[in-house]
Amino acid sequence: MKNSVIETIMNHRSIRKFEDRVLSDEQIQTIVECAQAASTSSFIQAYSVIGISDKELKSQLAEVVGNQTYVAENGHFFVFCADLYRHQVISEMEKTDLSTSLESKEKFMVATIDAALAAQNAVLAAESMGLGACYIGGIRNNLEEVCSLLKVPKRVIPLFGIAVGYPAQLPEKKPRLPYEHVYHKEEYKQDIVEYKQQLTQYNQTISQYYHERTDGKRTDTWTGQMVTMLSKPKRMYMKDFVSKQGFDLK
Amino acid sequence: MKNSVIETIMNHRSIRKFEDRVLSDEQIQTIVECAQAASTSSFIQAYSVIGISDKELKSQLAEVVGNQTYVAENGHFFVFCADLYRHQVISEMEKTDLSTSLESKEKFMVATIDAALAAQNAVLAAESMGLGACYIGGIRNNLEEVCSLLKVPKRVIPLFGIAVGYPAQLPEKKPRLPYEHVYHKEEYKQDIVEYKQQLTQYNQTISQYYHERTDGKRTDTWTGQMVTMLSKPKRMYMKDFVSKQGFDLK
Repeated sequence: MKNSVIETIMNHRSIRKFEDRVLSDEQIQTIVECAQAASTSSFIQAYSVIGISDKELKSQLAEVVGNQTYVAENGHFFVFCADLYRHQVISEMEKTDLSTSLESKEKFMVATIDAALAAQNAVLAAESMGLGACYIGGIRNNLEEVCSLLKVPKRVIPLFGIAVGYPAQLPEKKPRLPYEHVYHKEEYKQDIVEYKQQLTQYNQTISQYYHERTDGKRTDTWTGQMVTMLSKPKRMYMKDFVSKQGFDLK
Repeated sequence: MKNSVIETIMNHRSIRKFEDRVLSDEQIQTIVECAQAASTSSFIQAYSVIGISDKELKSQLAEVVGNQTYVAENGHFFVFCADLYRHQVISEMEKTDLSTSLESKEKFMVATIDAALAAQNAVLAAESMGLGACYIGGIRNNLEEVCSLLKVPKRVIPLFGIAVGYPAQLPEKKPRLPYEHVYHKEEYKQDIVEYKQQLTQYNQTISQYYHERTDGKRTDTWTGQMVTMLSKPKRMYMKDFVSKQGFDLK
């Protein structure tokens, strides 16, 4: 089962090195309009996008989030935000208190999901034009500074960036978890023996992947990588930050 | 700027009425594999998908979430879940306590975003095959019952459903917020006068959209719709539920 949409989707890899060439206004507008075409919960449209072309600003941002070169060096940098600020403005325009809704966990989830659906459309639109993209979760390393740099108000949370540009590399695709491990039929399977076997099998796949690509220097397993990553809790300021932005209080 | 990916994206509309025809196993597998091809934060792959084909189970689910007919009547029903259960299993396999990470707001956001990126790939893959789809936020109406019906364990949160099938309707596309309102250049614009003008302009677009399509019976504005929706807080049990599932505690 193949068509150009499925091929674009399956051909995805994160691009972290770009040619020194900027996106055109038309490309940027198409990417954002594609983002806006995504489904949105009850038509709430609870997201916004900040686009950064200024080189100096991109460098500052790269420094704030931890100096990933591709945050500074790309064809355009997008920041996708969960956004209930416009609904706050509406509350004032229509003189109705909406704070219980706006501060609920439900609407925090809605805005986060809305922004992510839009972002994935943006990435695929970019990839369909021959561009490459990389999600930058690193902007969550220091959201206080990111918000101050990009003048982000209360009721808005920058969730992630997307670096987009003309690819200057073609990395390998990393094999995903086994289909049977991720896809459950009719109900969530809880056969723990089979579940662990699938993880062990996947570990072999991943080890072999690294082994082949590093002349045997790397032989990480996936579960090993996950333990290393998750045993160092990251971004533990997030709970306070999200509250301070007026989200997820109720 | 056009190609078949951009056309598929821009052509999206939510389909709520399907032919009585099921998806093939091959279609389902392609849709899920496309979901899995999406980017995932630090390779964490923190989601899973439950696929429901059983008619009786779909009917029960429709009842639990509020009797939307298209939850019961479709070609296949997918439930996308934020999933850190496998990382909990890994924690036990590798005898390392990962609970601080797994219970952090950061990882709640990561899992939610991961699942949403995957889901949007799934929807576009389905649409590229000539299928239609509709996100079902309604499954969040009653997640306790949904979890019990689908045997969903702790560390997993069903976020939304997607009803997929052969379209039996072709609804109009609803106009989105003005591009300039959603897309900010270099920083988050805060000119409140201009911001409100854009909302007023969009209200006219939306009123006209309804007016034309209902022979003048409906003339809602977007801000009016938002006030009506948001002044009735929904799913206020979510904070407790999410905690109970072992997410977003720290």
